[in-house]
This record gives sequence, structure tokens and C-alpha cells, in this order.
Amino acid sequence: MASSAKTLATCIFCKIVKGEIPSFKLIETETTYSFLDINPLAKGHSLVISKYHAEKLHELPDESLTDILRIAKQIAVATGAENYNILQNNGRIAHQEVDHVHFHVIPKPSTSDTEGLVVGWPQQKVALDELAKIHEEIKGKL
Amino acid sequence: MASSAKTLATCIFCKIVKGEIPSFKLIETETTYSFLDINPLAKGHSLVISKYHAEKLHELPDESLTDILRIAKQIAVATGAENYNILQNNGRIAHQEVDHVHFHVIPKPSTSDTEGLVVGWPQQKVALDELAKIHEEIKGKL
Repeated sequence: MASSAKTLATCIFCKIVKGEIPSFKLIETETTYSFLDINPLAKGHSLVISKYHAEKLHELPDESLTDILRIAKQIAVATGAENYNILQNNGRIAHQEVDHVHFHVIPKPSTSDTEGLVVGWPQQKVALDELAKIHEEIKGKL
Repeated sequence: MASSAKTLATCIFCKIVKGEIPSFKLIETETTYSFLDINPLAKGHSLVISKYHAEKLHELPDESLTDILRIAKQIAVATGAENYNILQNNGRIAHQEVDHVHFHVIPKPSTSDTEGLVVGWPQQKVALDELAKIHEEIKGKL
């Protein structure tokens, strides 16, 4: 499959996919690879990545997206976590640390801020007519 | 499609899908619906949901997962955000507020903690032999 062959020689995740760097591999398909995060936020924290090298989600071809959530779901079940977060970060200021698209599967074993993803939610109040304007703007670009 | 017909009469997101509650709809497919979050963390914050009613990701059938990331990608592009987070929460302690699977597309316009997702990352140090044990344990359940 041509699309899954795009790799970047200097990328740590491309090296993991190719087996040049060892990993605690979980599930692998034609387009997708998954493994334990070695600096976990909680027990079972795993990564699901596209084999195709792209920095951000919107740069991935659709065929690279097919298996990702199915695998994330399987891993979530296998960790036994009742509560968990699926997170994919795009850009350094959005907390992306490796520039190769990756989805975190992060068990949330307790309410503690010392394990699992810690989420801050600075919710805004936006007037309906302002939302309607934003809606038109985004729809116009879809 | 039978699987996309499963709904829950009391669920606010099922009502949005059925048009019983209005929404700022973006993209709709046979299995998937997307719309603006009316209490956004940043301009363009949107939700991509399965039409099939399930509380958590691992309860969704695979066919309900097919369109989700493709749509999230399209919306991310349409918002014009360079940096953004894709987040799906499972369980109240993992910050899930509506008990119907939904993926957030959250632009991160600045490093400010007053807009966009705020991420806390309590990374753990785990010895390799401990990771190897966890790996065996999870693989055994896949």
C-alpha cells in the first residue's frame, strides 16, 4: 500500500514502526501500529499511530484513519479501564511532543491529578448570534 | 442500517441527531453527526458523534467508527486552526459530561490557559521490567 509507505528517516515513531527502535508492540495492521507509552500517565497508557508519516491529523490520508479507533477501542478494553481518555494533540502549544500523528489511550484510574490525563476546561459563554456567525464561517469552508 | 438506529429517548445527543433539539450542524453521514459545541473552549470547538447511542467508545460497533476521524479532520481544516486537540472522554472522572460517545475538535489558538484545552501531564517513571509485565498482561487480553 503506497500511502502507508511514507516515512521520515529521522522520525522516532517511523523508526519504531520499522523496528529500528524497540517498542512494547500491541496491535499492528497494514496502516496502523500501537504500543505502550514508556512514560505513561497511568498503567496501560498506549499509543496508536499511523504508519504513514504526517505531523498533524489533517495531513493524513483518509485510508490511514480506518483502523485507528478500532484499535484504540480494543486496547481500552484490554487495559480493563472503566474510565479513559482518547487524545490526539496537534502542534507544540496543543501539547504534541512527537511530530508524527499519534492517539493516546489513557486510563483514568482515579480522580487524582497524579495519574491519568488532567483536563482543564476553560469554557466560554458565547451568544447564539455569534455562534451562528461562526457556524456559517466554518460551513463555508467544509 | 440497523446499528445507527440505536438511540436513547432521554439522551440529549440522540435528540440532536433526530432534530428534536436544534444544533449548529456541520457534517452528517449515515453513522455520524457533527455540530458546534455551544459552550466552546475556543472558537470553532466542535463535536463529532456517533448516531448509534453508546456511552463509551468501547461499546460502539466498529461500523460506527468509520467516519469519525475523517469528519474531525475536515472540521479541523475548516476551522483554520494550526494547532488543535482531538479528545474523547469516557467516564465522569475522565471528564465526560454527556453519556453518548463524542469527539471534541478543539482549536488551540494560543498558549493561554483561558482558551482551548488545558492539558496536565503527570508523567510517571516506570522501570522497563515493570513495563514488560504490563505489556504481557495487556497483550494477553487482546
